[in-house]
Amino acid sequence: MESPAGLAAAPGALPYYAAFSQLLGLTVVATTGAWLGLYRGGIAWEGALQFNAHPLCMVIGLIFLQGDALLVYRVFRNEARRTTKVLHGLLHVFAFVIALVGVVAVFDYHRKKGYADLYSLHSWCGILVFVLYFVQWLVGFSVFLFPGAAFSLRSRYRPQHIFFGAAIFLLSVVTALLGLKEALLFKLGAKYSTFEAEGVLANVLGLLLVGFGGTVLYILTRSDWKRPPQAEEQALSMDFKTLTEGDSPSSQ
Amino acid sequence: MESPAGLAAAPGALPYYAAFSQLLGLTVVATTGAWLGLYRGGIAWEGALQFNAHPLCMVIGLIFLQGDALLVYRVFRNEARRTTKVLHGLLHVFAFVIALVGVVAVFDYHRKKGYADLYSLHSWCGILVFVLYFVQWLVGFSVFLFPGAAFSLRSRYRPQHIFFGAAIFLLSVVTALLGLKEALLFKLGAKYSTFEAEGVLANVLGLLLVGFGGTVLYILTRSDWKRPPQAEEQALSMDFKTLTEGDSPSSQ
Repeated sequence: MESPAGLAAAPGALPYYAAFSQLLGLTVVATTGAWLGLYRGGIAWEGALQFNAHPLCMVIGLIFLQGDALLVYRVFRNEARRTTKVLHGLLHVFAFVIALVGVVAVFDYHRKKGYADLYSLHSWCGILVFVLYFVQWLVGFSVFLFPGAAFSLRSRYRPQHIFFGAAIFLLSVVTALLGLKEALLFKLGAKYSTFEAEGVLANVLGLLLVGFGGTVLYILTRSDWKRPPQAEEQALSMDFKTLTEGDSPSSQ
Repeated sequence: MESPAGLAAAPGALPYYAAFSQLLGLTVVATTGAWLGLYRGGIAWEGALQFNAHPLCMVIGLIFLQGDALLVYRVFRNEARRTTKVLHGLLHVFAFVIALVGVVAVFDYHRKKGYADLYSLHSWCGILVFVLYFVQWLVGFSVFLFPGAAFSLRSRYRPQHIFFGAAIFLLSVVTALLGLKEALLFKLGAKYSTFEAEGVLANVLGLLLVGFGGTVLYILTRSDWKRPPQAEEQALSMDFKTLTEGDSPSSQ
């Protein structure tokens, strides 16, 4: 806030934290792949291996890409707001499509095997996350990218969008952890307590997921890393503020 | 920020959100008690029921009381800072002591039964939470309550204390969910998928835990609900700022 409006230098430590988050995120994806490859027979769309498409797609979509979509406003602090917005929206679309493939994989697998659906806490949290994610995207698109939305609506909705974005991301991490635990206990059962290699690897994957979630949250919430308002936006926001606070019959 | 420094009226909706959080928190504790009473034979310190002291103590200590300790600065917005600080510290002490009883219960139970310790993701997260909680309390006490700490140290450490406080609380909720899932799957196994009453109740408890965590986080992060700086603190902070920004050899 002390710097003049306009291009502000990125705060010193932000690039290192951003790089660390990417390293952690890629390690999460690689470790998920290693777990499925080493102990679960790999991935296929047909047969018993179809289930394995579920954890991989969910981790790539709703953990890694969703996390990165949240970081766009911190990492590209000095790009034009519109560019950042479009990138943020697009990353969420990619995340959603990949997650949708993962959701289809598990329902299709259950159907073929005759297993019950949606009985576990993991599945309840998962459906909740998925619906909230879709609604958040739709409302976000309508308010921030659709040209017609009033500026006053945008400023009132922005804090809610940010809070629910972070909360949905955290709930995605929680759901992944519950799913990991479920997959482990269904297969290992009492062997889990003998420090089987698969159990230890999965525990490490769990801690990596917690670490990625924590790092993204830290970068998002550090107040001196927030995106500085840019000169033209400030001027524009003043114009709009004046306009929308006036007694216009079309707004409010 | 627009109101004059000093006593600010509590923002309109805050009391309702605070009441809702307490209702949710108490429902979480009651549901945990109901689960243990209805499906796990109740609680005792001796014999097989000693295990059940673990979930109850952890939920009362590291979920309900820890959450309430974080809310102290929002609910008692207009009390003197020192009173609020002491209440915040004391609630954390109660939370820690009750959680310690819960941790001793499970280690003692494992020892008597000859079970392995610390093999699961739940236990790894649990130990991490417990150590972080203790360190955060010690550092918080030294910096904010111990009389000798410099004002500049306090302001630099405050944002870290707040972030890690929220993160440790969220990790406590995650750990509780993992433990709940573990307790369910060890007992129900494949019966979990037949919508057994215990499984459904435990899933509801899981969603209540998520709801309590989310509500506390919402109250904590809403920027217009932050504690307003009070008149005498503002004056004091100005004095200290002038002092510490001067060329004093003892600070920095």
